[in-house]
Amino acid sequence: MGTTQLETVPEPKYWHLKTVLSDALDSEFAVGEILPNERDLAARFGVARATLRQALEQLELEGRLQRRRGVGTTVAPPRVGVAVDPVSHTWPGAAGDDWQPVDAIESATVPAAVAGLLATAPGDPVHIVRRSRVTHGRPVAAELLYVLAEAVPGCPPAASLGAPARARAVLQELQTLELEGQDRTVELGSARAEDAKQLDRLPGAPVLVVTTRYVSGGRTTAVAVSTYRADTCRLTFGESDAAALLAS
Amino acid sequence: MGTTQLETVPEPKYWHLKTVLSDALDSEFAVGEILPNERDLAARFGVARATLRQALEQLELEGRLQRRRGVGTTVAPPRVGVAVDPVSHTWPGAAGDDWQPVDAIESATVPAAVAGLLATAPGDPVHIVRRSRVTHGRPVAAELLYVLAEAVPGCPPAASLGAPARARAVLQELQTLELEGQDRTVELGSARAEDAKQLDRLPGAPVLVVTTRYVSGGRTTAVAVSTYRADTCRLTFGESDAAALLAS
Repeated sequence: MGTTQLETVPEPKYWHLKTVLSDALDSEFAVGEILPNERDLAARFGVARATLRQALEQLELEGRLQRRRGVGTTVAPPRVGVAVDPVSHTWPGAAGDDWQPVDAIESATVPAAVAGLLATAPGDPVHIVRRSRVTHGRPVAAELLYVLAEAVPGCPPAASLGAPARARAVLQELQTLELEGQDRTVELGSARAEDAKQLDRLPGAPVLVVTTRYVSGGRTTAVAVSTYRADTCRLTFGESDAAALLAS
Repeated sequence: MGTTQLETVPEPKYWHLKTVLSDALDSEFAVGEILPNERDLAARFGVARATLRQALEQLELEGRLQRRRGVGTTVAPPRVGVAVDPVSHTWPGAAGDDWQPVDAIESATVPAAVAGLLATAPGDPVHIVRRSRVTHGRPVAAELLYVLAEAVPGCPPAASLGAPARARAVLQELQTLELEGQDRTVELGSARAEDAKQLDRLPGAPVLVVTTRYVSGGRTTAVAVSTYRADTCRLTFGESDAAALLAS
């Protein structure tokens, strides 16, 4: 967000270079254009390659550059706003939800953090629904939705349905429950191998992890762990509210 | 969030090492403990130092490790939940707001992204209020709040007040306006030099940037750009809602 300085602070060399590079991206390069190689860039700006690499990493964190295997470093398009907080609280899979179910399994093993939120005992069966979210034709997020099996007793046993049909069945059962409340946390994470594959990134790429807790019948009934690409996404909250005011 | 595998995906070497290291952190190290040096760790796990470094970077992204100048790499405490979305929409500086004003200036220069949101013309005067947020005695976030000068005409001219008094004056004037709506975006960024100083981090450290737009009188009147430490913070949205339900 620019460089408005309220007071003077000494800057490391890579930071100064980042600012210079950022200006060069604005004035000399178009979105999608491939940058010169590191050796040429370092020579042009009169810096060591290590310094250049640090500056390029900064610009990648800020979403200005993308590094892709077999392509090189390109100028990134502006980040896409992705709505995270629905206007009205609804279950995953409700009408208007733009996540697509991929498959589902029933499991007795969930990550410790999820088990803590669901307050399950070891061995309690949980449905794990995998979903994906696509915006403008590109995958932006991958999700694992954990649903207490006892909360959706109408869901057919595992063997009776194929994986995609099973995912839809769990989501349909959820709609029959009263949703009493939900909350969310957002934190920085690194993409797990399978999420990275869904998101077309390398394992460990920075992601924004949104954990949503769904409350029904006085307890946490479902937990969604949604992994958004941090390079291309800007998460939006309550957008429709202010946007409608400004449009009117 | 664990390693539940819905299907088998080949993992890079650093990723496997990260999982092994993560288990070791759980079983062998306490929060705050200093890790052995890179040479010893690489030898213990039988990997190259470059692989070790990649794994350590992953664990830092995930908030499991902290690297501090002059201290080394330590085991991080769990991330602290910081409420971002207030239950009722209020102006910055309203009662119960846990941000502290630091100082303020009047400026005609704002970052392009902020100028776009405020729909200002070049040269339009804007108050810039700097604030900080401290949780459990540690700085967690730094903020620049941009307020259209024409929206708070009662604010005394720049020369008549010291910087902290000026910040309070702008915030007080805001409370007299009707707040019609607000929205937020969350994205990954890198700490600017002055934010890094306030947050006790190096410039360029990963941060979560929350941009809040405040609407009054049918237009965007103020924009807050809040920079949260990504290593120690988990941003929470609507927490009180579900938490109250679960406590009852």
